Amino acid sequence: MIINPEEMAERDRYKILIGSILPRPIAWVSTMDGEGNLNLAPFSYFTVGATIPMTLIFCPQRLGREAQKKDTLRNIEQLPEFVVNLTNEETAEQMNLTATVLPPDHSEFEWAGLTPAPSTTISVPRTAEAPIAFECRLQQIVTISEGEGGGSAVFGEVQCIHIRDDIYVDGYIKLDVLKPIGRLAGPAYTRVTDTFDMVRKQPT
Amino acid sequence: MIINPEEMAERDRYKILIGSILPRPIAWVSTMDGEGNLNLAPFSYFTVGATIPMTLIFCPQRLGREAQKKDTLRNIEQLPEFVVNLTNEETAEQMNLTATVLPPDHSEFEWAGLTPAPSTTISVPRTAEAPIAFECRLQQIVTISEGEGGGSAVFGEVQCIHIRDDIYVDGYIKLDVLKPIGRLAGPAYTRVTDTFDMVRKQPT
Repeated sequence: MIINPEEMAERDRYKILIGSILPRPIAWVSTMDGEGNLNLAPFSYFTVGATIPMTLIFCPQRLGREAQKKDTLRNIEQLPEFVVNLTNEETAEQMNLTATVLPPDHSEFEWAGLTPAPSTTISVPRTAEAPIAFECRLQQIVTISEGEGGGSAVFGEVQCIHIRDDIYVDGYIKLDVLKPIGRLAGPAYTRVTDTFDMVRKQPT
Repeated sequence: MIINPEEMAERDRYKILIGSILPRPIAWVSTMDGEGNLNLAPFSYFTVGATIPMTLIFCPQRLGREAQKKDTLRNIEQLPEFVVNLTNEETAEQMNLTATVLPPDHSEFEWAGLTPAPSTTISVPRTAEAPIAFECRLQQIVTISEGEGGGSAVFGEVQCIHIRDDIYVDGYIKLDVLKPIGRLAGPAYTRVTDTFDMVRKQPT
């Protein structure tokens, strides 16, 4: 079938996107506002931008009919730093707790029983429980749209990487130790266990 | 352990990124140059930018020491349209064939035995074998960096969506019919079969 997205309600467009563009990695982003209040929230519109400078991109969406900015975006506008923590099977439940929308002055760290740990190069703390954390300075924010269903792309330049020692061995991230999870539609997630290899072919 | 990415070789930075930011969805992008030569290539630095306007983002990387632009990026600069086709278990082998670097005037469609099908709103064809395809007009290209390890973020606005009839039922994408795959590090991919649900908690 052929669908014109402009003829669909916002909710139906959203359901097509989250149901088809998957599995998605999860950026578990910690930020701080001008008064030092901490925020931690998961974002699955997340990818790599470049290797040099090491650049990560995540796309916070506007909330509801009023198209409000999420606290994460507001905080980064105030203090242009953030940590992209990663989550995994062990921290999945706590990550899910941080998806709860709390008032701006309530910390998701406290709500989810997580520990803010000092970062090395920025003032925003990382999540001690995260298996990997990328300390980032804001490179730029590209505003895609500001109305209902709108979003922004936040580009961060990685200053420093924290990796749990048992995960990074001989220059490789150990998938079976990291135990990552991916985001699907609705309440669904995937483990990364049913894997296969395909070697790239050379032209004949 | 704590790692400063600036002290690492490009190859080692890349291995950390592809080994930790996963599972990644795959944009299987078709483009056309000014002479009508078709290109088709997979990109796993890929995510959603916004729902309205429906916006997809993928990040082609510079190739090798010479930091050459990929044909996909060069083509989009010539003709600002592209199709983000999706791949799945059924089309995985053919998608992998299109990852082969061919000369610009050789079509990956032919090399991989795939069928270019006319698009509805743009001149660049989609892949008939793809379960879902998003016809996009270029919104903007954000150049992150142009040297070794560099990359760009390509923002596309979805004009039209093609979905195989059996995949989209009652307003939902059927995961078990789509059978998506995700990109991991090196030659590895994951099926999306080992899934679980987590319902979002309400604040107390």
